[in-house]
Amino acid sequence: MEQISQGKPGWLVQLVHHRSFTKVVMILILLNALLVGLETYPVLYEPYSGLFHVADRILLWLFTIEIVLRLWAADKISSFLKDNWNIFDLIVILSGHFFVGAQFITVLRILRILRVLRAVSVIPSLRKMVNALLLTIPAMGNIGLLLSIFFYIYSVIGTFLFADAAPEYFGTLHASLLTLFQVVTLESWASGVMRPILAIVPWSWLYFVTFILLGTFVIFNLFVGVIVTNIDKANEEDAPPSEVKELEKQIAELKEVLLQIREDQIAQKRQGSD
Amino acid sequence: MEQISQGKPGWLVQLVHHRSFTKVVMILILLNALLVGLETYPVLYEPYSGLFHVADRILLWLFTIEIVLRLWAADKISSFLKDNWNIFDLIVILSGHFFVGAQFITVLRILRILRVLRAVSVIPSLRKMVNALLLTIPAMGNIGLLLSIFFYIYSVIGTFLFADAAPEYFGTLHASLLTLFQVVTLESWASGVMRPILAIVPWSWLYFVTFILLGTFVIFNLFVGVIVTNIDKANEEDAPPSEVKELEKQIAELKEVLLQIREDQIAQKRQGSD
Amino acid sequence: MEQISQGKPGWLVQLVHHRSFTKVVMILILLNALLVGLETYPVLYEPYSGLFHVADRILLWLFTIEIVLRLWAADKISSFLKDNWNIFDLIVILSGHFFVGAQFITVLRILRILRVLRAVSVIPSLRKMVNALLLTIPAMGNIGLLLSIFFYIYSVIGTFLFADAAPEYFGTLHASLLTLFQVVTLESWASGVMRPILAIVPWSWLYFVTFILLGTFVIFNLFVGVIVTNIDKANEEDAPPSEVKELEKQIAELKEVLLQIREDQIAQKRQGSD
Amino acid sequence: MEQISQGKPGWLVQLVHHRSFTKVVMILILLNALLVGLETYPVLYEPYSGLFHVADRILLWLFTIEIVLRLWAADKISSFLKDNWNIFDLIVILSGHFFVGAQFITVLRILRILRVLRAVSVIPSLRKMVNALLLTIPAMGNIGLLLSIFFYIYSVIGTFLFADAAPEYFGTLHASLLTLFQVVTLESWASGVMRPILAIVPWSWLYFVTFILLGTFVIFNLFVGVIVTNIDKANEEDAPPSEVKELEKQIAELKEVLLQIREDQIAQKRQGSD
Repeated sequence: MEQISQGKPGWLVQLVHHRSFTKVVMILILLNALLVGLETYPVLYEPYSGLFHVADRILLWLFTIEIVLRLWAADKISSFLKDNWNIFDLIVILSGHFFVGAQFITVLRILRILRVLRAVSVIPSLRKMVNALLLTIPAMGNIGLLLSIFFYIYSVIGTFLFADAAPEYFGTLHASLLTLFQVVTLESWASGVMRPILAIVPWSWLYFVTFILLGTFVIFNLFVGVIVTNIDKANEEDAPPSEVKELEKQIAELKEVLLQIREDQIAQKRQGSD
Repeated sequence: MEQISQGKPGWLVQLVHHRSFTKVVMILILLNALLVGLETYPVLYEPYSGLFHVADRILLWLFTIEIVLRLWAADKISSFLKDNWNIFDLIVILSGHFFVGAQFITVLRILRILRVLRAVSVIPSLRKMVNALLLTIPAMGNIGLLLSIFFYIYSVIGTFLFADAAPEYFGTLHASLLTLFQVVTLESWASGVMRPILAIVPWSWLYFVTFILLGTFVIFNLFVGVIVTNIDKANEEDAPPSEVKELEKQIAELKEVLLQIREDQIAQKRQGSD
Repeated sequence: MEQISQGKPGWLVQLVHHRSFTKVVMILILLNALLVGLETYPVLYEPYSGLFHVADRILLWLFTIEIVLRLWAADKISSFLKDNWNIFDLIVILSGHFFVGAQFITVLRILRILRVLRAVSVIPSLRKMVNALLLTIPAMGNIGLLLSIFFYIYSVIGTFLFADAAPEYFGTLHASLLTLFQVVTLESWASGVMRPILAIVPWSWLYFVTFILLGTFVIFNLFVGVIVTNIDKANEEDAPPSEVKELEKQIAELKEVLLQIREDQIAQKRQGSD
Repeated sequence: MEQISQGKPGWLVQLVHHRSFTKVVMILILLNALLVGLETYPVLYEPYSGLFHVADRILLWLFTIEIVLRLWAADKISSFLKDNWNIFDLIVILSGHFFVGAQFITVLRILRILRVLRAVSVIPSLRKMVNALLLTIPAMGNIGLLLSIFFYIYSVIGTFLFADAAPEYFGTLHASLLTLFQVVTLESWASGVMRPILAIVPWSWLYFVTFILLGTFVIFNLFVGVIVTNIDKANEEDAPPSEVKELEKQIAELKEVLLQIREDQIAQKRQGSD
């Protein structure tokens, strides 16, 4: 959450944090999404391409104004840029002004579509969820490295062995990598890839069966890791360690009272023996 | 559970809540299911279409009588309509009377099949389970929204890039959406969709591989969320928080006794010092 | 575990429960498995079919002797038959004697292969595991019923709508059921089944997409149920409820001592006031 | 972790355990990986095959020196060989010296690729993870045995029934085993394997549907087992049994104080009654 800045005009800070501001931005994003969607239909786009262009320019300027307002309302520019979503917004919007001209048409189109992704940065619950999803990626690091080594070794072997038998699938190292990605998704691995090779290289089944067994085993363990981490996290949030702490506190109080009784008893005894 | 209404004839309320009443309805639903199943075989349907029609009419009227009885036995109409399953029953049965005539033949057929779904509303354990399944849907809201944004962006990009290369798959925005659904189920994504495009657009693998990695990652997280929620719910039901509460109560009692001892000791001491 | 019977000759009971007895049976089962495996190769079977037949007869009689010994060693025949695995053994072995003659050749072959399954009934750890797997089936009852209703409704609709467009897939109700099973495994659902139909019935995607979404959702929930049940069971075995019980006992002892102190104190007070 | 040996020169032991030593080895492995990757491109390999050969020889000798140094620095050879990863390193490197000559070209190539796997043995976190993955395999033993029996029985039946109808898929027992592996991965099981057979053997769907239902059920239970084991292990690590133990200790202390008070009280009473 951005703190409300103090040296800025009050109306500006209020405006930027107002619920309606987010709603208006959301509607603009939806309009933008509708626009890029409609543009894909040549029947609509070709006769009205000028209109589409004007609407796109207007939207781009409205988004620019929004970003400038939010940047202005921010405490410091550095605190604004600390949030990666703000940087994403900034790049997607500002680069729309730089790449002008017919030669950048594809870049511009992709930028215009990426603006739809701003919905994630604008809706707080979506932003939070995507952040949570992104946080699970580093935990996949090690198993991802293992998968890469595993894919690389099988690709090199595959290219050595089957480059002649199936040039479409194993002709080059990068073709092999793509084929192995297809095989690990189990898509046509037998009917499309293995069986034609099997007719030429009879023991090639060994290559595919071991690859599938190892590959699915490692990926499955990657998934189990994510499930266990999530369940663990959920359990930690649930755990009521305060209850046992409460018990400990009560027992400590009991002990205090008991020790007072004991002291008095000893004092009395001394008195009695005196 | 519907409360037994008081202003209604007793025999009616008893009848509607009787176990045999549910059983008879269940048998009628089974008969209805059998009938619509047999109608799909032209060898059976064509010579006896009149018979099928009569049987269907009889079943419809029996279901109508059942609904009317249950509606009559209900405390209030509003309380009857509060249960969505009752509304479902009402719509499925009553609309069978409205759509009469040859022009509504398809509507009527689908209504007749949907009556089989009434088995869910009649068997309590199924009803409970389906209600539980339906309750998990709202929790999927956010990730569903993310998936929609993600599908939409890739559809627009796919249509821009591959409309010419593969008009069957990416010719229009809605064709692209359907193709991406096929790709995310990993069905023929490589052999059917990507490889022919790859021959024309060499870097198109990037589009498909990133889509599959992101798509399966998000859907997998959706699944993990459901698993974690279910395990959590199961754990909560198991948790015996009463045991610690019991301990706390016992310790509180101990404290009370101890304090009484302490008070008396102090009183004694005063007496002694007097 | 079968109790050692008392009215039977000691050597028999000892023999049947001896480790070597199980090992010998295991070896016979392996030999039987090897035999039926080799028989599938015509190059081996055709010249030596007589030999194969003799070996099979010998194995059948050895298995029969084993069963008779175990039946004889059992306490009562009824206690022997209480274990479903024993009944399975009995049927598989004894029926080998009944179906003799060329007309039962296929039945005999399948019986000979099913004898391999006896490995499960002979190895205790396998037997235990299969029993555990079988126990999870009843818990799937309700969701299985729901799946059946769901499949039936979609089959009837599919046959009504696509019988003309795709007679191979939706020509009859049972063809539709098989096709829907194929679709729910996501095998060629789009490339093989939907796309040819889509060319004739443009809105047929709605049928397939909803079926896949609902079907995978229900099946996924079936799986989640099994996972949660298993985790629950594992947790219950782990739970140390005895620890809290131990604490309660200790506190109860404390209370007893305290009450004794209190009683004495009151008695003393009375003495003092007397 | 290897203990630092005492009878060895200090610089050697320090060198082998130095972080830079591992880094240099890591770089050599990367170079080796790059080399075998580039060799797959004939455009690069054919004109420079001599260079590739020299580079490979140099790398092999560098790896040999590394192994010799680590072997020399080890406390005892037996302790060095106790780690399976070291044995793997030794075999992969040393056999590179034995298989020299044109007739061993394929063996040498595979050995060169397997050296990339040394990355796992060199990076400690990867080594740990792979060891953890390997440890989950024994737990799969029983269910793996069940799957083998299950596959074998279905293979024999499949070969008996469909050898004539589909010689490509069920011609021999080993062809059937491969086909069933394909079917259990759900790849083209219907479109490729079952439907052509269905046209000849109308009830063959029973064979495939039961195989898929049973196969996926058993494999799913294998997966559930791994998930539950992992969650269990994670829970055990989390469990704070020390807290309850702490409570027990405190209550024991309370009891001691109480018993002292009680003893004194009794002593006093005796004194009073004397």
